[in-house]
Amino acid sequence: MADPWQECMDYAVILARQAGEMIREALKNEMDVMIKSSPADLVTVTDQKVEKMLMSSIKEKYPCHSFIGEESVAAGEKTVFTEQPTWVIDPIDGTTNFVHRFPFVAVSIGFLVNKEMEFGIVYSCVEDKMYTGRKGKGAFCNGQKLQVSQQEDITKSLLVTELGSSRKPETLRIVLSNMEKLCSVPVHGIRSVGTAAVNMCLVATGGADAYYEMGIHCWDMAGAGIIVTEAGGVLMDVTGEIMPPQSMQGSLLCGSLQNQTLADGDSGVASATT
Amino acid sequence: MADPWQECMDYAVILARQAGEMIREALKNEMDVMIKSSPADLVTVTDQKVEKMLMSSIKEKYPCHSFIGEESVAAGEKTVFTEQPTWVIDPIDGTTNFVHRFPFVAVSIGFLVNKEMEFGIVYSCVEDKMYTGRKGKGAFCNGQKLQVSQQEDITKSLLVTELGSSRKPETLRIVLSNMEKLCSVPVHGIRSVGTAAVNMCLVATGGADAYYEMGIHCWDMAGAGIIVTEAGGVLMDVTGEIMPPQSMQGSLLCGSLQNQTLADGDSGVASATT
Repeated sequence: MADPWQECMDYAVILARQAGEMIREALKNEMDVMIKSSPADLVTVTDQKVEKMLMSSIKEKYPCHSFIGEESVAAGEKTVFTEQPTWVIDPIDGTTNFVHRFPFVAVSIGFLVNKEMEFGIVYSCVEDKMYTGRKGKGAFCNGQKLQVSQQEDITKSLLVTELGSSRKPETLRIVLSNMEKLCSVPVHGIRSVGTAAVNMCLVATGGADAYYEMGIHCWDMAGAGIIVTEAGGVLMDVTGEIMPPQSMQGSLLCGSLQNQTLADGDSGVASATT
Repeated sequence: MADPWQECMDYAVILARQAGEMIREALKNEMDVMIKSSPADLVTVTDQKVEKMLMSSIKEKYPCHSFIGEESVAAGEKTVFTEQPTWVIDPIDGTTNFVHRFPFVAVSIGFLVNKEMEFGIVYSCVEDKMYTGRKGKGAFCNGQKLQVSQQEDITKSLLVTELGSSRKPETLRIVLSNMEKLCSVPVHGIRSVGTAAVNMCLVATGGADAYYEMGIHCWDMAGAGIIVTEAGGVLMDVTGEIMPPQSMQGSLLCGSLQNQTLADGDSGVASATT
């Protein structure tokens, strides 16, 4: 049977590359930076331009499909998940990196039907790494098949996470206290490259054993989520519950199947409301 | 006048590439991991093999030069800085990344004469990025000239640092409390890619505004130090003192010339003895 969504996926890859080209061009020029929820939560004209390009291109080709985009939601648009084919878009995951030209900036596109992930695309455009995941067909980076690590021992694990953009003292304290607890387990180390999508893709490659983050949004994980699961990993709430793809905000934990100890309470990771 | 050390620098680039090739080969195979100072301070047979290759190749060509190598020092060799031409080698900066196949692993080679940096090479071998710096002649990455950011405002800065490999509760607490203070300044964000050399090179590119780390060794910064200074940055102790290249251990801060506020005490960063 022909894959009903293959055409959409191919189109998503083309658009992600096009968006990446726009971002790389923008990196060469001066940029205006605006502030969203905190002095560390930034947005630029490029985020909005890239989202518009993606949205209008997809709408033109698939007028009946639904859309959820980070910047449209920020601009007040409602997000309702239906059974319809739905594109979930983060035009620039890692806007702070983009502003600083820190070389990890990703275009993230997720596609759901009947509220289930069908495929996801993460294009880390400065590195020129195209990550893709298709339900039942595996995850790839530039054509190479991905596999999460087989690490079962948390004391031998490398984690990725982020300090986040909240600057509320109580939130910061929880974030840092989680890091302290994890370091004391001990884990081998904690890394942060500044984008949820790339962090999750690093878990999919096996380069990191788990990623966790408090206060993540659906657009942060809609592209990378299926890349992780198709590489053999799991997406969980920090309580250990499997995370539904349409969660609008939550505390995500993803890792190799064997590495559920983070959520088992062994690590004492607490959840922060951001 | 001909550059007296150009030949040495060209040879260092060739050797760094050769070392990078050994590391990339080793990444394909199983590896035995040994523990050094803590369960998070690792070393592998590859670190030792690469250091031996580098040392013996250089010794053969320059029998009168001196050497300081991370793994030789770990094995008990004395380190005495003399006026002699001295090669300072870190065969694998980012050994934990190497063990996990987290894609930032660097070969670092620094070269001093009369206790002054003459050139430095950092080869980030998974990314295939060759960073070089030559006294008075600028810093480059794959042939492209580097320039640190011109950021003067700490509240608009992106920092790089590491949690470090110490798992002593009191050290961890200082490291995390520094992060908390910096986040509260606020800064735009903090990133960690897991190698001092690559973190410093990211500062040299302008992708990050400053890097700081407690308990850094001369081999961690001997290659990248001159890359930062030749890109227009400074190397300081956290007290604000300019850091001499032969410091065996210290608390390093490097950044663009304008960004000395970290050391000015504004940020309240404390130094930890590790």
